Amino acid sequence: MSFQSHIAAVQAHIEQVLDAWLPQDDPHTTRLCQAMRYSVLNGGKRLRALLVYTTGESLGATRAQLDPAAAAVEIIHAYSLIHDDLPAMDDDDLRRGRPSCHRAFDEGTAILAGDALQAFAFELLATRTAGMPDAGRIQMMITLAAAIGTLGMAGGQAIDLGAVGRQLSRTELELMHRRKTGALITASVELGAQSAGVLAGAEMAALRRYGDELGLAFQIQDDILDVTGDTTTLGKPQGSDALQDKPSYASILGLEAARALALQHRDQAVAAVAPLGSRAGLLRDMAHFVVERAY
Amino acid sequence: MSFQSHIAAVQAHIEQVLDAWLPQDDPHTTRLCQAMRYSVLNGGKRLRALLVYTTGESLGATRAQLDPAAAAVEIIHAYSLIHDDLPAMDDDDLRRGRPSCHRAFDEGTAILAGDALQAFAFELLATRTAGMPDAGRIQMMITLAAAIGTLGMAGGQAIDLGAVGRQLSRTELELMHRRKTGALITASVELGAQSAGVLAGAEMAALRRYGDELGLAFQIQDDILDVTGDTTTLGKPQGSDALQDKPSYASILGLEAARALALQHRDQAVAAVAPLGSRAGLLRDMAHFVVERAY
Repeated sequence: MSFQSHIAAVQAHIEQVLDAWLPQDDPHTTRLCQAMRYSVLNGGKRLRALLVYTTGESLGATRAQLDPAAAAVEIIHAYSLIHDDLPAMDDDDLRRGRPSCHRAFDEGTAILAGDALQAFAFELLATRTAGMPDAGRIQMMITLAAAIGTLGMAGGQAIDLGAVGRQLSRTELELMHRRKTGALITASVELGAQSAGVLAGAEMAALRRYGDELGLAFQIQDDILDVTGDTTTLGKPQGSDALQDKPSYASILGLEAARALALQHRDQAVAAVAPLGSRAGLLRDMAHFVVERAY
Repeated sequence: MSFQSHIAAVQAHIEQVLDAWLPQDDPHTTRLCQAMRYSVLNGGKRLRALLVYTTGESLGATRAQLDPAAAAVEIIHAYSLIHDDLPAMDDDDLRRGRPSCHRAFDEGTAILAGDALQAFAFELLATRTAGMPDAGRIQMMITLAAAIGTLGMAGGQAIDLGAVGRQLSRTELELMHRRKTGALITASVELGAQSAGVLAGAEMAALRRYGDELGLAFQIQDDILDVTGDTTTLGKPQGSDALQDKPSYASILGLEAARALALQHRDQAVAAVAPLGSRAGLLRDMAHFVVERAY
């Protein structure tokens, strides 16, 4: 199976899992549940789920064992996009070619949908992993919580919020991205490994390094695509980050140097998983995919 | 020790625990961490922590064993108030006599502070309970997550959001409050019991019933105080809910009937914990306190 068909299969699979697990049958909070489903079930790239499945399957886990972690990271990602798009944050009307949650519903509902999705991710991770050893289940919740708090995603978003309109150094930009997007990407790799029963040791350290490098490669490619991609493929106005004067690798380094840096992080990601030997094949393909994608 | 001194001791204790555990040493997200600390460390009533300690100590747990659960429910409560006060929600400028978080900081920071606090509550519950049996730790995370999702706090807030400006029936009002405030209050009782090693059975069922009744008594008393209390004692403008045309027990039933209903729920709470025998003393005092408080 080619890596492209692996991606397509995983994307179709996680969409079904999310659709089955998201709340839908509560007559009293119809609008809230609709906003949650609208924001999660929108056919995103599913990069984070892909990392959970790719890592976990490489280590011998079944797809079903990986579903809770994959669903949790996609749900967290969806919650973060809902809140990022709010008027008080990035004020984006469009998300993947459709009205963002607060435009399709309303601002109060969008805030609550994000809040409820965050709780739901923890609930899934705690309730849908009943067949796994308890120690691993607790470790997974620690991993997820740490990745999205002040030292992770929320902290990165706070740095971003404070950075609009002023020029960041490359070091500051990297720190922001390591938290804002990198922490959850690395957590996706860790959660995939934890779902497969790998909780610590040299393999986990190698995978964590892989996740860190892949996260930076992903973010740099995102910045490049914001300049070179077209609006239809991206699902948001091309150049929208630049227009908002948001710090970007493309603006700080220039396109060519940014491209070289993305490839360097890709190579470091590939090198990081060399100790996994023959089990690293899909992870290597994944690293190449991240910098070669056009959307 | 009188119940009033029990309250004062617990309030002082949880303040110290929260102060020690909240993040404070991250130079890159100073403003975010300040907003989190500002909103949590504001000397609230600490009703939810009080329920954790009162329940847990009644069942033989030490105060230290109860700290993670007590801190988690207070942190969740603080996050919910930050988001409730936002312009897109209740649009409140004042919280406990001080500017609300988005007024003291800014709206984006307030959204993120709430988000980060939610993650932090789960992180505390997962990391600070290391001495407890894993099964109990997982059960606690399930309890917390379920209490604050669509069938709990976030769902209740969504019902509230959809109810402004129209008259709710008493049944609808009760459903809203059972979720919006009741679910976390019941969870506080459950988490106290779980921290003490009680995970299921008749005692847990009795305590859950106690929490449900106490939550309703608390909410009705809150509605009464919104009409009869004074602004200084309440820390928010007296009559502010009525002014916003928010549904309330006082407006639906009238003050006298609301008062009778609060006492009825108090009595049902007291009756619920009768099976605990001599261990129910503090829980009975707590139920009386909830309807006798003037703030």
